[in-house]
Amino acid sequence: MEKTDAIDGKVDEASSREGSVCGYDSLHHLLSANLKPHLFQEVSRILLGLNCGKALETISLPESAKALSSGHDFDLQAYCFLADKELLREPRIVRVGLIQNSIALPTTAHFLDQKRAIFEKVKPMIDAAGASGVNVLCLQEAWTMPFAFCTREKRWCEFAEPVDGESTRFIQDLARKYNMVIISPILERDVNHGDTIWNTAVIIGNNGNIIGKHRKNHIPRVGDFNESTYYMEGNTGHPVFETAYGKIAVNICYGRHHPLNWLAFGLNGAEIVFNPSATVGELSEPMWPIEARNAAIANSYFVGSINRVGTEVFPNPFTSGDGKPAHADFGHFYGSSHVSAPDASCTPSLSRHRDGLLISDMDLNLCRQLKDKWGFRMTARYDLYADLLARYVKPDFEPQVISDPLLHKKSP
Amino acid sequence: MEKTDAIDGKVDEASSREGSVCGYDSLHHLLSANLKPHLFQEVSRILLGLNCGKALETISLPESAKALSSGHDFDLQAYCFLADKELLREPRIVRVGLIQNSIALPTTAHFLDQKRAIFEKVKPMIDAAGASGVNVLCLQEAWTMPFAFCTREKRWCEFAEPVDGESTRFIQDLARKYNMVIISPILERDVNHGDTIWNTAVIIGNNGNIIGKHRKNHIPRVGDFNESTYYMEGNTGHPVFETAYGKIAVNICYGRHHPLNWLAFGLNGAEIVFNPSATVGELSEPMWPIEARNAAIANSYFVGSINRVGTEVFPNPFTSGDGKPAHADFGHFYGSSHVSAPDASCTPSLSRHRDGLLISDMDLNLCRQLKDKWGFRMTARYDLYADLLARYVKPDFEPQVISDPLLHKKSP
Repeated sequence: MEKTDAIDGKVDEASSREGSVCGYDSLHHLLSANLKPHLFQEVSRILLGLNCGKALETISLPESAKALSSGHDFDLQAYCFLADKELLREPRIVRVGLIQNSIALPTTAHFLDQKRAIFEKVKPMIDAAGASGVNVLCLQEAWTMPFAFCTREKRWCEFAEPVDGESTRFIQDLARKYNMVIISPILERDVNHGDTIWNTAVIIGNNGNIIGKHRKNHIPRVGDFNESTYYMEGNTGHPVFETAYGKIAVNICYGRHHPLNWLAFGLNGAEIVFNPSATVGELSEPMWPIEARNAAIANSYFVGSINRVGTEVFPNPFTSGDGKPAHADFGHFYGSSHVSAPDASCTPSLSRHRDGLLISDMDLNLCRQLKDKWGFRMTARYDLYADLLARYVKPDFEPQVISDPLLHKKSP
Repeated sequence: MEKTDAIDGKVDEASSREGSVCGYDSLHHLLSANLKPHLFQEVSRILLGLNCGKALETISLPESAKALSSGHDFDLQAYCFLADKELLREPRIVRVGLIQNSIALPTTAHFLDQKRAIFEKVKPMIDAAGASGVNVLCLQEAWTMPFAFCTREKRWCEFAEPVDGESTRFIQDLARKYNMVIISPILERDVNHGDTIWNTAVIIGNNGNIIGKHRKNHIPRVGDFNESTYYMEGNTGHPVFETAYGKIAVNICYGRHHPLNWLAFGLNGAEIVFNPSATVGELSEPMWPIEARNAAIANSYFVGSINRVGTEVFPNPFTSGDGKPAHADFGHFYGSSHVSAPDASCTPSLSRHRDGLLISDMDLNLCRQLKDKWGFRMTARYDLYADLLARYVKPDFEPQVISDPLLHKKSP
């Protein structure tokens, strides 16, 4: 289903800001194409957490979805996570979709044209999800716009929309049509609170209704991610949305670096947490699979990780606070969307370069099965940490430090 | 420095309970021996978090250490983590050692002989660390004994010692001799509290003094890890030990699955957290690098992960609660000790099969540099989580759930 050209690792010097070999589709493909099968199997056992290194089962998809994939040039992959059969509960199998995409027009185009062109680009991918019977679909962070926060220019705020704005109405129609829950992460304009701006995920039910919203809790100030220039820390807590297809939550982008944020969605009962993101290779690629998989393991839920793809070039050059010359792009958004399961397994990632739809069947019974197996919730001793954090947030917090009494007598 | 035979992945059917290819030394070796250099470089960039895929620099070690390694047949590897040079602080370079080993005698031998034979086996490894100028050394969990908790037999409690017992005196001599801080994780007998048993790390200062102890906070009840049969949750909080070579802490074994436990050591100011462990392939191998590296990233400190090696066979067969026949071993302890840095990089792992000493130089300045770069502490919003946990620990906690109002009207 995917392009495999250049999978031997041809260096593509054109993407020079990425600073690495990039002529391959994904780490998974690089390894599978270059290792003997029995070695790839062992690597998969450890790296993908696959039992005995056996690949996840793939799902057969309808021809209409495949036709959309080839006709609109997006990657389409589909895997299945299994759970043990239980005696007292029926399986609760949910089909989840993740969409990653590049923007559709140059950032110099009229804003309305840019947004509408993204709608047109994403629609066949949503159609493919609908045709494939996806139950819960998540789009990438701020999917209606280029990720312009590197520029520090306020004019990009025009892309912000109210929760019931144009993009939501567009998604509502598709949610209703396909009986699908859709998570739509947008830049939100909160008109009723002084036109403030938030980074928000709108949760749209399978009947096209707006179930609610979640605002990004943790805002980066790192590299070109000048997001604190544009919006503030969310004020919506850690809601879990009870939908027709299970309890879901959204940890937006930089929140994935915060284990407490992941924890909070777990304590509120999430079974699937989506992490719509926008992040670039030089900054975060080695951290990308680790944080999501750790969250899935530690919290006994599924995680769907989404990152946009491509390099977005902006009209006015900007500096990055690293002493280097001004430049006009953010670096390469490396895609690599994937799903992590509570048993430490995960799917291969979507392409580092192409648009893609990743579909995964997951039996939500696996969450409680893992809680029973590993007992992380029961052994967590939350009372210790409630006490520690209550003390820590006070200005006069004293860390628990035991000093070597000889430290200031004999120094080495 | 390491054996590379069978690195092409020869299947060793003898270790059948491991259920996988095992005739290779480590994942790192498997990949480096079977991928073309430019591909291995790219894989290293993503998998080991190495800048542009460049390998960590190796450290040149004295001939005396190498002679001990070859004379006593243990793996010896040494790497160097770099940090940026600062203008107002000198580098704070600490040389850290991790030791992994198998037991020395069959578990049928007299207990005192078993323990003394382990002392003899571990001594040349500690000598090699001393000869190499290691500043802080950590041994594996319950290093004085076989990991007998799978048996549920209480007679193994005889291995427990007071904090100032025989093993501590043995380590104190070596700490003094080599001016080295040593962390000695043992099964502790608390004579002053009714002969109770704990899983404890004793922290011995570079002058041979006992700085303090930490008792394992989270106790597993998973698979054959029947540890809750033997000892209880620790009552020593999350101490950070201020030593001559930096602020260190110990997250013992199963505590690595608990992000809050990692967090607490960070909040108390740890710069290096050791994770002495005992864990087997079938249960945890895919989780092993993820949890440690996630902790290092999220908490902006170094993590030293240690796991014992080999298969330990016990006198009396036992069952595992999985419906399978009784058996006499715990599975394969897969070693793979390694160091993770706050910048998401990590060392290659020690062997999955051999004893080993892993040495790493680390500039502790890297911890604060990463805090400044990523800002995780400043963006963490601990007040939200102090509040959540305070509510969560109450019996009447109500999760923050937003239900689709149409949920019970139209079900899909």
